[in-house]
Amino acid sequence: MKEDIGQTLIGLEQAALDRWCRGDPSGFLEISAPDVVYFDPFLPRRLDGLDALTAYYESLRGTVRADGWEMLNPDVKMIGDAAVLTFNFASWAGSGDRYRWNCTEVYRRSPAAQGSAWRIVQTHWSFTGGE
Amino acid sequence: MKEDIGQTLIGLEQAALDRWCRGDPSGFLEISAPDVVYFDPFLPRRLDGLDALTAYYESLRGTVRADGWEMLNPDVKMIGDAAVLTFNFASWAGSGDRYRWNCTEVYRRSPAAQGSAWRIVQTHWSFTGGE
Repeated sequence: MKEDIGQTLIGLEQAALDRWCRGDPSGFLEISAPDVVYFDPFLPRRLDGLDALTAYYESLRGTVRADGWEMLNPDVKMIGDAAVLTFNFASWAGSGDRYRWNCTEVYRRSPAAQGSAWRIVQTHWSFTGGE
Repeated sequence: MKEDIGQTLIGLEQAALDRWCRGDPSGFLEISAPDVVYFDPFLPRRLDGLDALTAYYESLRGTVRADGWEMLNPDVKMIGDAAVLTFNFASWAGSGDRYRWNCTEVYRRSPAAQGSAWRIVQTHWSFTGGE
């Protein structure tokens, strides 16, 4: 059961990543909660809330394009109605450089009355170092 | 009640940070779970498990020193026995540069039979960009 949820969440994430890498941020926005908090390496501080994330992502719409990407070694920890998905990520365009990332997504299951949907409440993207 | 737990976790984190900034990684190791996963900007991939984190942190023991630090705008999201703490962080040595970080900690409460202690199951440190 737990493994199924883990696979479901990995699938959700991969579907959103696929859209992201074609310039479409809506995949992530559709599965982010109203109170989502967000970090990436380009921002001077944490973004708080879906409105702020929407404004930011809309400013990037159509600007991101990757020809390929890979989710590496995903791990899901289930804690009741919370799930912590972590993975390394690589993306590339043409024969150019590979970009390497660290990612943490925390998903929260909404109450049954609200459809028991899993929504992202925390996103943290950063560059992988070393090597 | 939730607010109290949030304050408790912020206090736990600050106590560990205080030791970290004096070169002592044990504060974090003592509150990390056996299955902790860990990202920072210096590693080529995610670290998995307390043994791996211990080996890494022991290699850094005594090498980190900050004269001052500040936890900025901490946010705690409670999801049952999970708590997601996010904050920006600044540290400095002497009159030198300030280092600016993004941090996500996911804490998990252990079962009552194991003392109901809060332990870190996911740590993600990265550099703050922008500005």
